[in-house]
Amino acid sequence: MLKKLQEVATTVNELIVNDDFPTGVEPDYLRATVMDYPLRGGKRLRPALLLWCCGLLGGDTDKALYPAVAAELFHNWTLVHDDIIDEDRMRRGQLTTHEDLRLFAYNKFNGGDLASDKFGQSFAILAGDIQQGWALNTILKSAQHGLSSELAVALAQRLLHLGNCQLISGEALDVEFPMRKWQNISSEEVLHMLELKTGALLRFCAEAGAAIALDSCDFKRKEIKMLGDFAAAAGIAFQLHDDWLGIFGNFDKLGKDIASDLASEKPTILLLKTFESLKPELQLHLAGMLGLDEYDEKIINQVRKLMLDCGAEAYLREKSDNYIAQATKILSEFPDNEYRSALLELTFFLVNREK
Amino acid sequence: MLKKLQEVATTVNELIVNDDFPTGVEPDYLRATVMDYPLRGGKRLRPALLLWCCGLLGGDTDKALYPAVAAELFHNWTLVHDDIIDEDRMRRGQLTTHEDLRLFAYNKFNGGDLASDKFGQSFAILAGDIQQGWALNTILKSAQHGLSSELAVALAQRLLHLGNCQLISGEALDVEFPMRKWQNISSEEVLHMLELKTGALLRFCAEAGAAIALDSCDFKRKEIKMLGDFAAAAGIAFQLHDDWLGIFGNFDKLGKDIASDLASEKPTILLLKTFESLKPELQLHLAGMLGLDEYDEKIINQVRKLMLDCGAEAYLREKSDNYIAQATKILSEFPDNEYRSALLELTFFLVNREK
Repeated sequence: MLKKLQEVATTVNELIVNDDFPTGVEPDYLRATVMDYPLRGGKRLRPALLLWCCGLLGGDTDKALYPAVAAELFHNWTLVHDDIIDEDRMRRGQLTTHEDLRLFAYNKFNGGDLASDKFGQSFAILAGDIQQGWALNTILKSAQHGLSSELAVALAQRLLHLGNCQLISGEALDVEFPMRKWQNISSEEVLHMLELKTGALLRFCAEAGAAIALDSCDFKRKEIKMLGDFAAAAGIAFQLHDDWLGIFGNFDKLGKDIASDLASEKPTILLLKTFESLKPELQLHLAGMLGLDEYDEKIINQVRKLMLDCGAEAYLREKSDNYIAQATKILSEFPDNEYRSALLELTFFLVNREK
Repeated sequence: MLKKLQEVATTVNELIVNDDFPTGVEPDYLRATVMDYPLRGGKRLRPALLLWCCGLLGGDTDKALYPAVAAELFHNWTLVHDDIIDEDRMRRGQLTTHEDLRLFAYNKFNGGDLASDKFGQSFAILAGDIQQGWALNTILKSAQHGLSSELAVALAQRLLHLGNCQLISGEALDVEFPMRKWQNISSEEVLHMLELKTGALLRFCAEAGAAIALDSCDFKRKEIKMLGDFAAAAGIAFQLHDDWLGIFGNFDKLGKDIASDLASEKPTILLLKTFESLKPELQLHLAGMLGLDEYDEKIINQVRKLMLDCGAEAYLREKSDNYIAQATKILSEFPDNEYRSALLELTFFLVNREK
């Protein structure tokens, strides 16, 4: 499957490099920034999902290419703004957009720390804003590349609904969580946040691929809805696996990440479910192991033991398995072709990652 | 004309209040924030421009309503992000979005100053992001309200080009200026920035109104291009008048604003043109009156005298007059009807404001 993903990545890259939308952006280093994340690569899961759902229903995947690239561009601008909000320094092994621009300003304008910092943030906000427009322009371009204008409009509106309303609402809930005590957040709230933040755009990809194959603007149509549900379920399984890796992942590889999540009291479903399942005295014990300055494998193993003993770890794995079962069951109702195999492989790939 | 503007404002407000796009936004206070700026009012110049350019060419202004509202929404999301970048506290007599959210977080979550500040900025970024989507969704909705899908796609793509590429490039140049010494910025660069930051969206409004009237997707068509040029010229005259008011406005009303522009060494065309026209010793004199901690009318009058004596003030007024002449000449080539009168009045209104 990785080869199949690679083929998608090559096609996507080519279209992004050659697209004329960013041409007019000034100054030139802002134009370069706008192209940066979209060309950093990544697995291109969203374009693959869109193209393969189109192929699954016998559609011409060439007609789905612009929408597939649009979904990838949309994903990328949300990363640029997320990285500002989360104050992250690194993204895919390189500096985040705002950090990169901060450094640029520091060197080019001798801006001083404070001014460079502010400049980095401001320009990163603007870069994301332009990228959002680029994503929309790309999906609308599909009207000039094989789709009817009606369908291009319908796809764009669906992207705006699932992407701007739902995905960003999920991001907002995620930003709100740390303002509240983690003990007051329920695992259901976190699940809901994940459905919005990750599930919504994956749902869009699957729906869009199906709608293009069927040449239909009716997102309530059975096949379109089914594939949307498939993608959303796979996406949540992916997130739950992420949760699991965040505690039970290989200590040598992920020890630092595990420690940082515990140190920041990150409200994951696994943590909250554990808390909800424990007796009051063990709740205190768990709370005492969060927010520490330092972590070693011994403390992490104590956290793990609590999660295993109270059944929260098993609950999480079972929940993830259920979502995978739901996703694969949906796929099984579609005809068996190369795209169905690829989508099935993609689903299992998502929940068998080590990182 | 103000009555005619009021009519536009009423129609625009009604559509914004009742539009379903923000319905799904969570949490509820983010939804309220998304509606906030768009409902604060303002003069609704952009919708008026769009509707009247449509009417000028005999188009059905009802069909132009969704694009008109889209232009207003687009303008509003750029204000939300601009206000974060400029760290402004007030907008139209109320707190800016990020300040409003900062205060909200401080009260609701007992967040402390730093966390509330960060929360205000993060949520304001997300609010603007959603509003950008709202603007695009609104222009695409015109396909369900009287326009062909082809035209809706073409209008949206034109908005993305002029709005996301050009307008945001203008904003970026404006953010870059303070990182450089103002003496190294030319008045041409500032003019170019204004053409992008203000001119591009006004150009879109005029072009869109004309394109709707003519049911044409060809933005190179003569009437469409002419009206675009009209709007861009009027917009620059408006900005030049702003520059002039920023120094020569009524001291009792605008003294504080004048002082703050001089204190922050804001690179306006008037300031740069003055600097370019002065002999070296007077350049030093001018530079010495910038960036001070305090200003009284006496210092401001000295700055004014320099600007008058070297001819920079006259240059600015002449330039503004030329743009107005250019704008009105274009209008004179269109048939005389109530919309032409309204557009003419609008043009003179822009350059006869006292603030």
